[in-house]
Amino acid sequence: MKRNIRLKIRYDGTKYKGWQRQKTSTNNIQGKIEDCLSRILNENIEIFGSGRTDAGVHANMQVANFFTSNDISCDLLYENLNKYLPEDIAVYEVKDVKEKFHCRYNARKKTYLYRIWIDTSSPIFERKYVYNYGKKLNVDLMREAARLLIGEHDFQGFCKRKMKKSTVRNIEKVDIKETGSEIKIYITANGFLYGMMRIIVGTLIEIGQGTQEVNSIKEILNEGVRSEAGFTAPPQGLSLYRVEYS
Amino acid sequence: MKRNIRLKIRYDGTKYKGWQRQKTSTNNIQGKIEDCLSRILNENIEIFGSGRTDAGVHANMQVANFFTSNDISCDLLYENLNKYLPEDIAVYEVKDVKEKFHCRYNARKKTYLYRIWIDTSSPIFERKYVYNYGKKLNVDLMREAARLLIGEHDFQGFCKRKMKKSTVRNIEKVDIKETGSEIKIYITANGFLYGMMRIIVGTLIEIGQGTQEVNSIKEILNEGVRSEAGFTAPPQGLSLYRVEYS
Repeated sequence: MKRNIRLKIRYDGTKYKGWQRQKTSTNNIQGKIEDCLSRILNENIEIFGSGRTDAGVHANMQVANFFTSNDISCDLLYENLNKYLPEDIAVYEVKDVKEKFHCRYNARKKTYLYRIWIDTSSPIFERKYVYNYGKKLNVDLMREAARLLIGEHDFQGFCKRKMKKSTVRNIEKVDIKETGSEIKIYITANGFLYGMMRIIVGTLIEIGQGTQEVNSIKEILNEGVRSEAGFTAPPQGLSLYRVEYS
Repeated sequence: MKRNIRLKIRYDGTKYKGWQRQKTSTNNIQGKIEDCLSRILNENIEIFGSGRTDAGVHANMQVANFFTSNDISCDLLYENLNKYLPEDIAVYEVKDVKEKFHCRYNARKKTYLYRIWIDTSSPIFERKYVYNYGKKLNVDLMREAARLLIGEHDFQGFCKRKMKKSTVRNIEKVDIKETGSEIKIYITANGFLYGMMRIIVGTLIEIGQGTQEVNSIKEILNEGVRSEAGFTAPPQGLSLYRVEYS
């Protein structure tokens, strides 16, 4: 029987074309980890992530699993992985899990974080991890709009593509924190459509700057038309913050 | 009469050869700012910093001043500077000051911050701003040693070069904070010798890992021999944190 090993991963997505392995490019996070694992374990390894992240998007916590018959200890695998992975990808937990565990199918909820820089001075040390908006936003309006997103809705209007499968998702929580120089938006849901987080954030920004009404959220949810929602906020402000399992 | 303008500056020193303008290389922070100012003001500008920072060292707050007869408003200068400066250098305050004000001579005290990463997992998002030590250190011993540094002493033993001028400095405060994943060392003094902060940190690390005695601090201060002190901690963990004027 093969072992099923789960990895918890953190990465700076700045220079990658996203999580997913691609046929034509090796510049992706999944590929980097698979290559490392394959070399260490001396067999072809395929890993299954909890979901994809787009080009330039980061992860504070990504979860992936893979199968192997190698009997290497988790500690040694952890050590070797972090020795050979590039400096912008780290594995911070390696653990044997039940054979049936699947990172994507068993993920109960996910939280994404989006960071908006609102200070007029440049975000020198944070510049690769925030969207440099550079002006104040009306956070009260953004919070009011965010409350309308909570619950089970059809989020087609906040999706980059017209989907055949169900576009109904359940947003459990939206938390908007303002510090002196930035606004942090955390959204927890049972799943996210393609582009959903960044389009929601773009819409909230337009509401916060007064170019869109709070109630437009209702219309976008009801009518499901992408063009009614806001712009797609740029990738560097986004990170997959947490993945939760039952 | 010429105006004397003071700048407050923040920079990520990763890719620069330090603060100071050099004859053979343009890859320094002073030079980048001077070039921008000279273009904006259409005259040759020389700026005076509160002090140098080494290659790879950052600044949360560097202060510099320069003289000009241009009557541009501080707001417009601020705007133009931040438009033309590279993304890793920012000016966050531009202000007219008294003619006699001099950034270096009038600096009453400076605080440097050194960040040591002590978690076993890699510092993905902080990797350019910490020294990745990767193991626990005995912070109590480090604090005990740090207390011996406070006050007026001859710091020749913590200096990279044999100095002709006085090597007496006054350390007012050493603050060592431990969070889950890092140790932050703040040192405030009326001045720092060349390499002093990084050699102090290297010595404190050796004390924290048990390879040097707490009391060795006394000997280094008394005897002033560089070879008795610890290694020079690497530059990327260091930043000029604050400069204070009376």
